[in-house]
Amino acid sequence: MNQRLSKLQTWMKDNDIEVGFLTSSENVFYLSGYYTDPHERLLGLAIFQDEEPFLVCPAMEVPDAKRSGWEHEIIGYSDIQNPWDMIQNSIQKRLNRVSKAAIEKEHMNVERYEHLSKLFPSAIYVSAEEKLRMLRMIKDTHELKIIEEACALADYAVEFGVSEIKEGKTELQVLNALEYALKQKGVTEMSFSTMVLTGANAASPHGNPGETKIQKGDLVLFDLGVVVDRYCSDITRTVAYGDINDKQKEIYDTVLKAQLAAIEASKPGVSAAELDLTARRIISEAGFGEYFPHRLGHGLGIGVHEYPSLTETNQLVIEEGMVYTIEPGIYVPAVAGVRIEDDVYITPDGAKVLTKFPKDLKIIK
Amino acid sequence: MNQRLSKLQTWMKDNDIEVGFLTSSENVFYLSGYYTDPHERLLGLAIFQDEEPFLVCPAMEVPDAKRSGWEHEIIGYSDIQNPWDMIQNSIQKRLNRVSKAAIEKEHMNVERYEHLSKLFPSAIYVSAEEKLRMLRMIKDTHELKIIEEACALADYAVEFGVSEIKEGKTELQVLNALEYALKQKGVTEMSFSTMVLTGANAASPHGNPGETKIQKGDLVLFDLGVVVDRYCSDITRTVAYGDINDKQKEIYDTVLKAQLAAIEASKPGVSAAELDLTARRIISEAGFGEYFPHRLGHGLGIGVHEYPSLTETNQLVIEEGMVYTIEPGIYVPAVAGVRIEDDVYITPDGAKVLTKFPKDLKIIK
Repeated sequence: MNQRLSKLQTWMKDNDIEVGFLTSSENVFYLSGYYTDPHERLLGLAIFQDEEPFLVCPAMEVPDAKRSGWEHEIIGYSDIQNPWDMIQNSIQKRLNRVSKAAIEKEHMNVERYEHLSKLFPSAIYVSAEEKLRMLRMIKDTHELKIIEEACALADYAVEFGVSEIKEGKTELQVLNALEYALKQKGVTEMSFSTMVLTGANAASPHGNPGETKIQKGDLVLFDLGVVVDRYCSDITRTVAYGDINDKQKEIYDTVLKAQLAAIEASKPGVSAAELDLTARRIISEAGFGEYFPHRLGHGLGIGVHEYPSLTETNQLVIEEGMVYTIEPGIYVPAVAGVRIEDDVYITPDGAKVLTKFPKDLKIIK
Repeated sequence: MNQRLSKLQTWMKDNDIEVGFLTSSENVFYLSGYYTDPHERLLGLAIFQDEEPFLVCPAMEVPDAKRSGWEHEIIGYSDIQNPWDMIQNSIQKRLNRVSKAAIEKEHMNVERYEHLSKLFPSAIYVSAEEKLRMLRMIKDTHELKIIEEACALADYAVEFGVSEIKEGKTELQVLNALEYALKQKGVTEMSFSTMVLTGANAASPHGNPGETKIQKGDLVLFDLGVVVDRYCSDITRTVAYGDINDKQKEIYDTVLKAQLAAIEASKPGVSAAELDLTARRIISEAGFGEYFPHRLGHGLGIGVHEYPSLTETNQLVIEEGMVYTIEPGIYVPAVAGVRIEDDVYITPDGAKVLTKFPKDLKIIK
């Protein structure tokens, strides 16, 4: 049994949960090593305190699931078979009764919940999601290695995007060129919809890349991430096209100072809130407090938004092995929008910065 | 009240459903005209038999929702407000009690279902999804116009992709070039992951675009769709690179004959099954029956897979206003994979073909 499954089983024992039935691609992948997007079809991973776990997936996916390294039972169902009957049989082979089951309440839909409830009508259902978020929050060295690769590609993407900036080019032209360059490098998925925003559009919290043209004196903001082996990176850089005014520079310098301070403060033992406040105090003292409307950052991994959530009220303590973003921003309408974001990994000595594109204000002439 | 809402209200009255609470972006858009992807946040549309409907969305989305043309109440909630309290208040202003509610059981998750169940503990919940699928199946002229635009861009994409075919190019190179060309035309979303498959890869039902290189004597298969104003198109064409052998030609001719026959048979009054069988009989009589493993086609619209489902057992009767794909295929391992797919709109006189890229066997020298 792998370590991740063992940890979940320990939690199940501590909470008298006889069966966990997980259905999201992300958590099934995290626990089994097998990833698939089954679309409307059912994917499931059943876990027990001591008995052998099993995977349920469409029959045509079984060979893939085996190749992924999953060593336990796999139940494949065809489009004319009822997977719920098969699940019931397989669970009943292992357990006499189910009184408490764990599911992903934010993922499982009502239709499936009704099926499951009919199989085990006397069971109560609790959510496994909080526990899985806590487990996924701490990355192992294999995960770190993959995230580092994803970060290197994100650096490349920003570098390429910056090199594409020219007077009169639109946000979408730069964005498309940058994503095309990534595809040439074998990238098939971005962590989220890439943002390239210029001028007033970057200064709006609702800006979306469009036909706005880059002009002299603009700040151009790139926010993007690359998926490698199912793990995400996430980077933001803001560069100047031509000379910018003193106010824009002041905003840039303030964001950078806040970002560097939060990186410096990142180490085991500090709270998420303290990190957020470290950056927020610097921005507030510079007079821009009301223009920093979002949290400092978020964990990332298989999902682009994981734990920890770096808000000014989250007392969660930072630990070795966490990977999260540090991304303060200041958005003054009609003046400037600046955000600087790195991904960091927490070592015993502090933060190791995984995204490496330079952060000194870059002025493109 | 718009016609779509009126039809749903009639269904609610006929079934004694006091409130419908819909949460999927697609159905909220279909009924309200407002589209958003709220990610993990709640989006909802509450509909009543006679009372005014209301939208629930994140507060920052309210201006967008208003701009979309929705003329009824909009409830915006901030990240520190509980939307369920606001929903309860708004429903209780309209109704004294809820004994039967309609939700999307395949979309709503258990967490939200538990919230809703607490608000109305004595209510029973039925699914609105089948009714919405039946409503969405019949397109109005506005929807048709948008789908025609999406089809024209799909035609362009195939034309561009075919022009990129060269000895030694990989599937992914052709695919990336084609999608880049679409982006230059302002396309921001594909209906699904574009397929460019060559040779043996096209002949495998599990083929995925990769590093396989195009070689003389290959059949190259394109399957793609473009999203315009939230509506999807879906086209497949198969072309030859260099001279192909007689078996490959025979397969191509058989697929084309089956496809044309199913288009010819498409008209109001015929059953979905009869359409599937029209194509399937031609393919079986040519000796390739076992190599046509999927249904003839599917409806499309806001979703890329809608009703009607053209299977050999579906007795649903074809009606004016339906839009669906006709896409027979033959996949003989190590010999050839051929699929030809058009999108058609059903008029009183028969099928109007919306995708127009030529279907005569094209041999690229």
